[in-house]
Amino acid sequence: MKQLKKLISDKKSLLCVGLDTDMAKIPAHLLKEEDPIFAFNKAIIEATHCFAVAYKPNTAFYEAYGERGWSSLKKTIAYLNEYYPDIFTIADAKRGDIGNTSSRYAKAFFEDLNFDSVTVAPYMGKDSVEPFLAFKDKYTILLALTSNEGAYDFQTQLVDGEPLYKKILRTSLGWKNSEQLMYVVGATKAEYLKEIRQIVPHHFLLVPGVGAQGGSLEEVCSYGMNEDYGLLINSSRGIIYASEKEDFAEVAAQKAAELQQEMAKFIK
Amino acid sequence: MKQLKKLISDKKSLLCVGLDTDMAKIPAHLLKEEDPIFAFNKAIIEATHCFAVAYKPNTAFYEAYGERGWSSLKKTIAYLNEYYPDIFTIADAKRGDIGNTSSRYAKAFFEDLNFDSVTVAPYMGKDSVEPFLAFKDKYTILLALTSNEGAYDFQTQLVDGEPLYKKILRTSLGWKNSEQLMYVVGATKAEYLKEIRQIVPHHFLLVPGVGAQGGSLEEVCSYGMNEDYGLLINSSRGIIYASEKEDFAEVAAQKAAELQQEMAKFIK
Repeated sequence: MKQLKKLISDKKSLLCVGLDTDMAKIPAHLLKEEDPIFAFNKAIIEATHCFAVAYKPNTAFYEAYGERGWSSLKKTIAYLNEYYPDIFTIADAKRGDIGNTSSRYAKAFFEDLNFDSVTVAPYMGKDSVEPFLAFKDKYTILLALTSNEGAYDFQTQLVDGEPLYKKILRTSLGWKNSEQLMYVVGATKAEYLKEIRQIVPHHFLLVPGVGAQGGSLEEVCSYGMNEDYGLLINSSRGIIYASEKEDFAEVAAQKAAELQQEMAKFIK
Repeated sequence: MKQLKKLISDKKSLLCVGLDTDMAKIPAHLLKEEDPIFAFNKAIIEATHCFAVAYKPNTAFYEAYGERGWSSLKKTIAYLNEYYPDIFTIADAKRGDIGNTSSRYAKAFFEDLNFDSVTVAPYMGKDSVEPFLAFKDKYTILLALTSNEGAYDFQTQLVDGEPLYKKILRTSLGWKNSEQLMYVVGATKAEYLKEIRQIVPHHFLLVPGVGAQGGSLEEVCSYGMNEDYGLLINSSRGIIYASEKEDFAEVAAQKAAELQQEMAKFIK
């Protein structure tokens, strides 16, 4: 993760821009384009890349448009890899299946699309996650404590006297190539970050939920940072839909710059 | 679920054929076709539809081929809906995300592709699953106890004195439209079915792991059946890859017929 550390240090940013691109929310003038989703993403990337260290398309928004959506996703990741190869890319796919099937998902996201990382659900255990970890120089971002209300249904339930998400963090450290793990921890649960850092002091955390979902940047930084910075803080709606007019990219740039400047305060 | 009950009774079958279609495993002569995956699926469906009550493509195998794979998946479900509308269809996708994002996945599988059901991971809790349950006449198949070894990592861990998968079963019954739930329970863990039936006596169970993974049909039927039969028993590799030659469809039909005849013994 030296590369990501350097990028954060150079850009004074922890910002991950979530490309949750929804045809119903993008500015009307883009709907005339051949591929409105890619046109929107490209404009957002061009406007925000100076302030961002990572981009994270959530696959649900692309699958909702079938083959066309998949094609837009492919163009988006290809564009990032061609023009901004140093920026970290995350397929927010939350996949996970039995071994030989997880391998297919890993191949799809790591080889065919060439993402740097993919988010994975932990419920099916070790043999559902290790096929992702088997890909060299790729990162597997395991759901630990998510930003939604439903996180309290099972993730925080006590197992052997500790919450399930901690059991998962601890257990995952024993998996093969666990140094290629990162973890999702919601910003809405920043107070948990202190204890999480005791279990996984060295891994990167992907933190959604700052902004629209109400998480505090200051709390996340003060509890979550480590020697490599160790945080990627995601904002989606707060940046990409800050304006629904023709100035959407300009306004997105402003919002990304504001967040980056807030983040810079915490980056030594 | 009256329709599925009637179908099971009419066909004397609980068989779900898993369409885990892998370009590296389909017969060589099909590779000349414009869409080898769809050509394979169509031949398998034509050969096995008399013996099957459900088909279950696992989305990983299609995503692994990007847009082309997504197109093959779309043609496969369209073919099933056109020619065999009474057969139950399952998108084995194991999705799950925060609310507004889960809605996108639900839209993709239920509306655009028009599957009858989709498999969903429970880790993110109620608000990640209810958006799927909001679709009328559609079923959400929640992972409970999966067929792989990793199921013992977290699913069987004790929470409040009972295994996590039981906690999930019990909790999910309180979710909105929970009558549209089904559950995945691996055949490799058939001895658990008795206790599972005490918690969810009326819901259908999707049971993978008979055949290649070693589960016993007799145990599954004797512990898992309910008043509606309540079981869909999946076989993938054991049927679709029973022969890798030009006779693959014929051999698949034989294997499906053999399984159906075994199943018929348990269907009154």
